[in-house]
Amino acid sequence: MKNIFLTFLALVLWGSTYSQNYTQYVNPFIGTTNFGTTNPGAIVPQGMVSVVPFNVTGSDKNKWDKDAMWWSTPYSYDNSFLTGFSHVNLSGVGCPDLGVIMVMPTTGKVDARIKKYGSLMSEQQAEPGYYSCQLDKYGIKAEVTATQRTGLSKFTFPEGQSNILIDLGNSLTNEMGASIKIVNSTEVEGFRMTGNFCYEGNSERPVYFVARFSQPAKSFGAFKKMPAMQAEEAWSSTADKFKYYEGFLHPVAGDSIGAYFSFDTKQNESVAVQVGVSYVSIDNARQNLEFESTEFDFEATRANAHQQWESTLSKIKVEGGTNDQKTVFYSALYHMHIHPNIINDVNGQYPLMESYGTGEVTDRNRYTIFSLWDTYRNFHPLMSLVYPDKQLDMVRSMVDMYKEGGWLPKWELNSKETFTMNGDPSFPVIVDTYLRGLTDFDVDAAYEGMIKSATTPEKDNKIRLGNDFYLEHGYVPFTEDYDRSVSIALEYYLADWNLGQFAKALGKTDDYKRFDKQSKQYVNYYDKKEFKMLRPKHPDGTFLKSFDPLQGKDFEPVHGFHEGTAWQYTFGVPHDVKGLIKLNGGGKKFTQKLQYIFDDGLFDMANEPDMHYPFLFNYVKGEEWRAQKETRRLIDTYFKNSPDGLPGNDDCGTMSAWVVYGMMGIYPVSPGNMDYTITTPVFDKVTIALDNRFYPGKTFEIVRHSKNKGNFIQEIRIDGKPVNSFFINHKDVVEGAKMEITTGSK
Amino acid sequence: MKNIFLTFLALVLWGSTYSQNYTQYVNPFIGTTNFGTTNPGAIVPQGMVSVVPFNVTGSDKNKWDKDAMWWSTPYSYDNSFLTGFSHVNLSGVGCPDLGVIMVMPTTGKVDARIKKYGSLMSEQQAEPGYYSCQLDKYGIKAEVTATQRTGLSKFTFPEGQSNILIDLGNSLTNEMGASIKIVNSTEVEGFRMTGNFCYEGNSERPVYFVARFSQPAKSFGAFKKMPAMQAEEAWSSTADKFKYYEGFLHPVAGDSIGAYFSFDTKQNESVAVQVGVSYVSIDNARQNLEFESTEFDFEATRANAHQQWESTLSKIKVEGGTNDQKTVFYSALYHMHIHPNIINDVNGQYPLMESYGTGEVTDRNRYTIFSLWDTYRNFHPLMSLVYPDKQLDMVRSMVDMYKEGGWLPKWELNSKETFTMNGDPSFPVIVDTYLRGLTDFDVDAAYEGMIKSATTPEKDNKIRLGNDFYLEHGYVPFTEDYDRSVSIALEYYLADWNLGQFAKALGKTDDYKRFDKQSKQYVNYYDKKEFKMLRPKHPDGTFLKSFDPLQGKDFEPVHGFHEGTAWQYTFGVPHDVKGLIKLNGGGKKFTQKLQYIFDDGLFDMANEPDMHYPFLFNYVKGEEWRAQKETRRLIDTYFKNSPDGLPGNDDCGTMSAWVVYGMMGIYPVSPGNMDYTITTPVFDKVTIALDNRFYPGKTFEIVRHSKNKGNFIQEIRIDGKPVNSFFINHKDVVEGAKMEITTGSK
Repeated sequence: MKNIFLTFLALVLWGSTYSQNYTQYVNPFIGTTNFGTTNPGAIVPQGMVSVVPFNVTGSDKNKWDKDAMWWSTPYSYDNSFLTGFSHVNLSGVGCPDLGVIMVMPTTGKVDARIKKYGSLMSEQQAEPGYYSCQLDKYGIKAEVTATQRTGLSKFTFPEGQSNILIDLGNSLTNEMGASIKIVNSTEVEGFRMTGNFCYEGNSERPVYFVARFSQPAKSFGAFKKMPAMQAEEAWSSTADKFKYYEGFLHPVAGDSIGAYFSFDTKQNESVAVQVGVSYVSIDNARQNLEFESTEFDFEATRANAHQQWESTLSKIKVEGGTNDQKTVFYSALYHMHIHPNIINDVNGQYPLMESYGTGEVTDRNRYTIFSLWDTYRNFHPLMSLVYPDKQLDMVRSMVDMYKEGGWLPKWELNSKETFTMNGDPSFPVIVDTYLRGLTDFDVDAAYEGMIKSATTPEKDNKIRLGNDFYLEHGYVPFTEDYDRSVSIALEYYLADWNLGQFAKALGKTDDYKRFDKQSKQYVNYYDKKEFKMLRPKHPDGTFLKSFDPLQGKDFEPVHGFHEGTAWQYTFGVPHDVKGLIKLNGGGKKFTQKLQYIFDDGLFDMANEPDMHYPFLFNYVKGEEWRAQKETRRLIDTYFKNSPDGLPGNDDCGTMSAWVVYGMMGIYPVSPGNMDYTITTPVFDKVTIALDNRFYPGKTFEIVRHSKNKGNFIQEIRIDGKPVNSFFINHKDVVEGAKMEITTGSK
Repeated sequence: MKNIFLTFLALVLWGSTYSQNYTQYVNPFIGTTNFGTTNPGAIVPQGMVSVVPFNVTGSDKNKWDKDAMWWSTPYSYDNSFLTGFSHVNLSGVGCPDLGVIMVMPTTGKVDARIKKYGSLMSEQQAEPGYYSCQLDKYGIKAEVTATQRTGLSKFTFPEGQSNILIDLGNSLTNEMGASIKIVNSTEVEGFRMTGNFCYEGNSERPVYFVARFSQPAKSFGAFKKMPAMQAEEAWSSTADKFKYYEGFLHPVAGDSIGAYFSFDTKQNESVAVQVGVSYVSIDNARQNLEFESTEFDFEATRANAHQQWESTLSKIKVEGGTNDQKTVFYSALYHMHIHPNIINDVNGQYPLMESYGTGEVTDRNRYTIFSLWDTYRNFHPLMSLVYPDKQLDMVRSMVDMYKEGGWLPKWELNSKETFTMNGDPSFPVIVDTYLRGLTDFDVDAAYEGMIKSATTPEKDNKIRLGNDFYLEHGYVPFTEDYDRSVSIALEYYLADWNLGQFAKALGKTDDYKRFDKQSKQYVNYYDKKEFKMLRPKHPDGTFLKSFDPLQGKDFEPVHGFHEGTAWQYTFGVPHDVKGLIKLNGGGKKFTQKLQYIFDDGLFDMANEPDMHYPFLFNYVKGEEWRAQKETRRLIDTYFKNSPDGLPGNDDCGTMSAWVVYGMMGIYPVSPGNMDYTITTPVFDKVTIALDNRFYPGKTFEIVRHSKNKGNFIQEIRIDGKPVNSFFINHKDVVEGAKMEITTGSK
């Protein structure tokens, strides 16, 4: 099978020059400090495998240690002690999981202790699909690249005994346990448990792998940390130490196990290892490895990965702007193509949602890692616009999850629902996709899944907490300290509004009316008298007395809200901004309050609930300049071409999608609403290539005419005609509109 | 396949009455205290599986704890806290290994903590192939039985939630690590690492299993002990606790894992579980389980096991004697049929010696657990006489090990050489078997293997330590404190004498002369001047100065000897007793010295080196009465119908073989020497059924005519003719001799 892949690879390379038009503007180190939780590892777009330098354990020299705090990412730019390259990883996620199948090169005598085999790292380089660094302790150059389902590492060794360890103990996930079996001197197979997402999780699952080396090992073996012996009488030279099983070809299982392969290398001799992964079985991991075999041609594999990124990033072409701005933009677009990632093996098999069976897809991809509470806001609308084929497969995957597991996903991780975050965030994703014209999925099943989630009584409802009270009284009541009641209900309102829109589109008028009405009940939380904000409410209809709108800053516990203050949620009704304005006393008062949030530092760029706030000024005639001002300020302040260049967790590309939109000058304020609102583009020209399989237009262009230095919009023309609105409809966009924006100092 | 087995089972039962002629005299509790290290578990003769109550961990109420001392057995009669039934076990061994695949019934909420789920036990009952007890904590009756490769457990529960745990963390072996996968509500599969024999070992290997339940579990899941979290910041409700994976059908691996199956039982409802085992693969374990399926018919399975024991024990019929004497005798014969045990699966596959491949036998059994330094002395000669088919398969297995692994075995454990104990103990076993007329094995390969071991220079010799010096100078020199030099060399002399006898029988005269000469070199150690004993010798030929013949009592460290004093080794030349007598100054001085050993408490019945001593009196004319006196005293003193009824480790049936011979009144003083020496039988009549496929005679009978109360032999007749010797040749025995012994008070 491998020849098929290599032929394909050759064709790809033959058919294109090795260009760097877009990838030159990707800095994979962006977001690798400041809790961005991205990493500079090697991956192809939506790849199952990423090969990530793992440097968050084993040394006091590291600033961040995975075991010393809530640490959710395998890499930090602030750290320097490398203990290997992990092969399945989460990027931009705020909870730890995965970070396993660790491959580490060393020299000299094999030592399986992390603290002993780890090395200081230097000379890091990263580009899409490629990462390299120097291992100072050993004088090893490590280079890694990837295919969709395999990682390829090339280690250039000094002269002498050189080793490659596969350590299945070392991990980011707090789940433990693995099994490994050396097949022969060039191959090893096994599985590693993952899960314990957010230190609890529901995501326990083995990930299977097969690794092959580019040359036979001179010697090899397994290792395992032995338990301490309890008494002096029972002695053993390996008690509480690593035991080495030289030449061992049986399986070895345990909490802290691995295998080593040793080579007798000449100066600067390279040994490569390719690791195939599967979530179904070792057999599938081997099939993946064989189908995507690189035959250890590192440069060809790297070039192929590179080319995939060029092709992906080229869908949006920006002109003008500084190199740093382009880098912020394309790095964000890059980060949008890490998750959701494929989970189907080359034979089409994938783990069924919430069961232990195996599904199969043939003509499409099955996706996983849906951080939907984040991504519904902007990520999926952008995928729908620019990558409709991928977005459709993502929606198909979500609907399949409903068919398989009985519920639409909320925060899905490798076919397991983790129940992380709030609400019913699959609704806005699916409905938004449908309304954008991407309807080729099982619409009936999707609708059925939504109705089930929206209407099932609480005791049988796996997704909607507080549903009984919500359905009867229109809000989720505050019932205990630090509950998330308002945050939860706001998600329901948005979901129900989307469901209503879906019903309307499908001609289900009664459902439309019901859910549309339900979506407006957020007014229940509005405290007209005292705070004039959304405020937690008791079951008896009275507001929470000990209400402090500032409570919840910096992720401190807060009554009624989740990961934010009341300020950051009080305009959390993107589907009914007009109603919200009215509720807040009209445009002027609304604008004042909104501006107050920005001026008083109440806005939080690092999390999702208020990320649409700056665009809300556009809903008040004459106040649009504030949106232009605030968005540009936020972009310039929080999004940088540097490791701290993201304001917080990337949240599977949500933060990145925000800046991609922001820099293009459009933003989809509410999923399900087909209007993009308009602000000042950072670039002189933005050209989005439209996929003609889905959309009639060829490109959507945004052209900025800068009269002078100012960033304020003076005129907007669509296809040459001036428009009197700061909104452009999706229909115009996909029909291939050209939007011209003239800017000046006001 | 299972129907074949059941048909066979039915035939066996149909063809015989359910008799207790012999099994009524087996007390499986003999040897279960006083370091006998046997156990009362259920097993069939030479079964791969034994189902053993495991009560050596988890409670202060236990007298002996596996982790608090060098503890080598899964059970002690002194203990009372049961934590399950282990399915592969060593019996009568002085080093721990195996004791895994633990099945434990509980009630109520599942708790995977050993200390919590363990229970006090009572009402123990054991008979060959059956064991039962009451679990006081739960009111559960546990009953276990076995087939060759499976264990069948039946648990009778009270009303309510009843559980069966399969705990792969709990074990006797100090090797850790396992993988488990629940297949469905009635089946679970996995493997458990074993090894670390004697706390070091070379015996690491997974043992595979498949378990099936007699009814679907109402609920089930895996469990795993999670690691402790290092910091307060990283919280998890399962840190340092057991995590339960309800309904989990993926594999789970780790150090301390298992699975639970819960049932909703009525009062006195039984649930049975059958566990199939293999050392090759899970597939083979399943084949074993299916072929030997009992269809959960506990009573039929128990009856079948019982019948196998009746059949096995019936080969020696004793008459007269007390019930206790018969019980000591048949329990010893029972203990001789635990190890070596079969390791071939029903499809004939078994793990190849010292490699990771799989061999296959079709027309015979492959045996394992060869504690040869012990068993060469008496166990194998008795197997040759009474169970020649089994003995031949054992020798074939040993020769195959040479072919597979390059060396004849020394202390083989599940196809791994553990290098335990000293010398070259396969030689006496193989040669003795051959000389007894059991020649249908690959004699050339056996001879080749012996020559290789005897002549390969030390640096390439895996078996013979000190071989270079030994070959050149005729002894192994004392080179460091507490070395075993003399003990090692004594083994070589005996091995070489046997090799000489083998060469002679094969017409290889030069080899015969060479090795026979070599075997007499024990005289090198004889200190004529000072101690008149065998004494450690330096490389320069001088004797060890700090020599203390009493050093080494009770397993204390000793210079030049192993697990014994110089006294216990100084007559360790069974192959040349005449030479030994001469060396010691003739019969009188020899007798005096030997008697001194007994009189002064220098003899150790608890270990092997001197176990032939009491019979040595027979080599001095007129002193035979001393042999009769001492053997009877030793039998009466050390072998009892009680848990402390063995003087020490049974050593895979060696201690038992000693008393079986001793009570019959014959003993093979030296393997390779076809003479049995004669002492007073305990019984009035002993009838050994001879296997006509191998031996011409039908039975060998020993009849004792007791003139009065005395135990001293007055006359010996063979086939009616008085003989003037205290020896009877194997040839006479297997031709069906009748030996009559007349005893009196002197």
